[in-house]
Amino acid sequence: MPKIARTIAHQAHVGELALIRSIRQRAPNVSLGQVRLGIGDDCALLRPRPGEELAVTTDLSIAGRHFTLATHPPESIGHRAIARGLSDLAAMGARPVAAFVSLAVPQELSSEWTNRFYDGLLRLAQAHKTTLAGGDLSEAPIPLADIVLVGSVPAGRALLRSGARPGQILYVTGALGGSAAGLAKLAEESDSDRKVSNRRRSSNADAALALHLYPQPRIAQGLWLRKKGIATAAIDLSDGLSTDLTHLCEESRVAAEIDAQLLPIHPSATLQQALSGGEDYELLFTAPELTRVPRSIAGVPVTQIGRILRRGGKRATVTLKTAQGARPLQPTGWQHFV
Amino acid sequence: MPKIARTIAHQAHVGELALIRSIRQRAPNVSLGQVRLGIGDDCALLRPRPGEELAVTTDLSIAGRHFTLATHPPESIGHRAIARGLSDLAAMGARPVAAFVSLAVPQELSSEWTNRFYDGLLRLAQAHKTTLAGGDLSEAPIPLADIVLVGSVPAGRALLRSGARPGQILYVTGALGGSAAGLAKLAEESDSDRKVSNRRRSSNADAALALHLYPQPRIAQGLWLRKKGIATAAIDLSDGLSTDLTHLCEESRVAAEIDAQLLPIHPSATLQQALSGGEDYELLFTAPELTRVPRSIAGVPVTQIGRILRRGGKRATVTLKTAQGARPLQPTGWQHFV
Repeated sequence: MPKIARTIAHQAHVGELALIRSIRQRAPNVSLGQVRLGIGDDCALLRPRPGEELAVTTDLSIAGRHFTLATHPPESIGHRAIARGLSDLAAMGARPVAAFVSLAVPQELSSEWTNRFYDGLLRLAQAHKTTLAGGDLSEAPIPLADIVLVGSVPAGRALLRSGARPGQILYVTGALGGSAAGLAKLAEESDSDRKVSNRRRSSNADAALALHLYPQPRIAQGLWLRKKGIATAAIDLSDGLSTDLTHLCEESRVAAEIDAQLLPIHPSATLQQALSGGEDYELLFTAPELTRVPRSIAGVPVTQIGRILRRGGKRATVTLKTAQGARPLQPTGWQHFV
Repeated sequence: MPKIARTIAHQAHVGELALIRSIRQRAPNVSLGQVRLGIGDDCALLRPRPGEELAVTTDLSIAGRHFTLATHPPESIGHRAIARGLSDLAAMGARPVAAFVSLAVPQELSSEWTNRFYDGLLRLAQAHKTTLAGGDLSEAPIPLADIVLVGSVPAGRALLRSGARPGQILYVTGALGGSAAGLAKLAEESDSDRKVSNRRRSSNADAALALHLYPQPRIAQGLWLRKKGIATAAIDLSDGLSTDLTHLCEESRVAAEIDAQLLPIHPSATLQQALSGGEDYELLFTAPELTRVPRSIAGVPVTQIGRILRRGGKRATVTLKTAQGARPLQPTGWQHFV
């Protein structure tokens, strides 16, 4: 948007002017005609197709809270910042259209850092045909970004959190806990000598690290579920299964039970990480019992993990069944960096 | 949006939970049917009317840069944060639909501060029928906000920066430099004893202070200019006349001259503040020479201040005519707090 060009012009800072030109050049309009006007005016203009609604989501990423400069490469910080919004679109079954990136960085952070942040962000944006249509750029004592994603979905057809009904079956895409295991690995490595640690790393740990640094939002899976009319409700697993399932139950006014033995736990992860790790960006969805749900969607496995129950008076919202019996599962997710 | 409820739930913080509930309660859907789904799911859903486009703008407001806790009441910080985006919509001739508020505050900042921030923000939002449809909430070492505004405008009818042509006349709404004069007053007061200073304040200075703390975006004027088909180009004066006029000229590939003696300078402001003060949030627009432009629109005066010229080879983009002759005017605006 306007602001990018505008703010920078004021700073009359040749390096940043060059940076902003390069961002603008690297932000081609890839949204198939829905972005009518991008960076350069007071607002961007989006023209939805007839009969479509726009889904809008916004996510803050703040140093020390969602990432740290010491452990996360700038490409990963950019990738993760936009992955969060893309994953929200996936959970609605929406097709990405445009992204708006408000970035604030300390003066001492090099323009190379900012360039690499945009490298990671734009690579994922373009993989999902998302046009960088605007944003803002400022200075702040710590780096932070607020990313807005806009997607399109046929009117009245978005997958909501509120559609789950008692008797329906709970499914997740992919594996759980990988991101949390990768984060634990990352913290461990930053405490010790990186090279030694690298040598010790297993291929599972490598895979978990990649899941943490470069999570893949399930856009294709969300679109498929919405188009086929299979899912009755959906939410993305950004905050951990225990927390996000609680949210889904609250919005649908139901309860749920999940079976620990069914959970597709990432090979590097513990049960606890699978339940509350967060940032897996998989989809959790419900479907009627008699609906045939495939074992994989667009190459990503789909696993049945439990079912939706009627909401009881004193019953816990979410129950975890294990070999030792059943226990209430509290929402314990969202373990970022604090 | 989802995030507000979600983030807070994790923090399991009774005060903040209460806060978020109160925000949600205070965010009625006032957008006449265009916000189909607000706070509470993965995304908000906006349904534009047939034949309309959506205008989207995003603005960062960061402590120490756009405001300071010491000088700005929280209501003013919230008001100013959303005024910036509303003013961008005004400059496109767009009607406000929805706002998304990403707010980060230090842990030690009281929930009363956050409540008062939302008081100021929601009061202005509701005055312009803008629904708070989502956002994010986080902790950060300093308070900051990123505000997204979405508006609607008939497809292809938005007022752009790029439509000015040589020979057309330049107009501004309202008075110039008042916000900068108010800001100077505010800085002065915070240095001295507030009570003594209060006694010395003139009514003009009071008016300037109000313009700085509670600027009024020119939504009605932008809508009128767009509907009547009078303006050929428009931009809002957020960064100062010299800077914003340069932007308009660059996007339209023209030059311009303005006449210092015609400028509607606020009674408290200097010529310099009128030229480069910024944050007046008035509209600067162009109209063909033969078009009859009224002296006021929706109660706000409109003043002719200059004209659009052909772009010359070595000629300055903007020329200022004064009693002493003509001189090139450099873009010197955007004097926030840095």
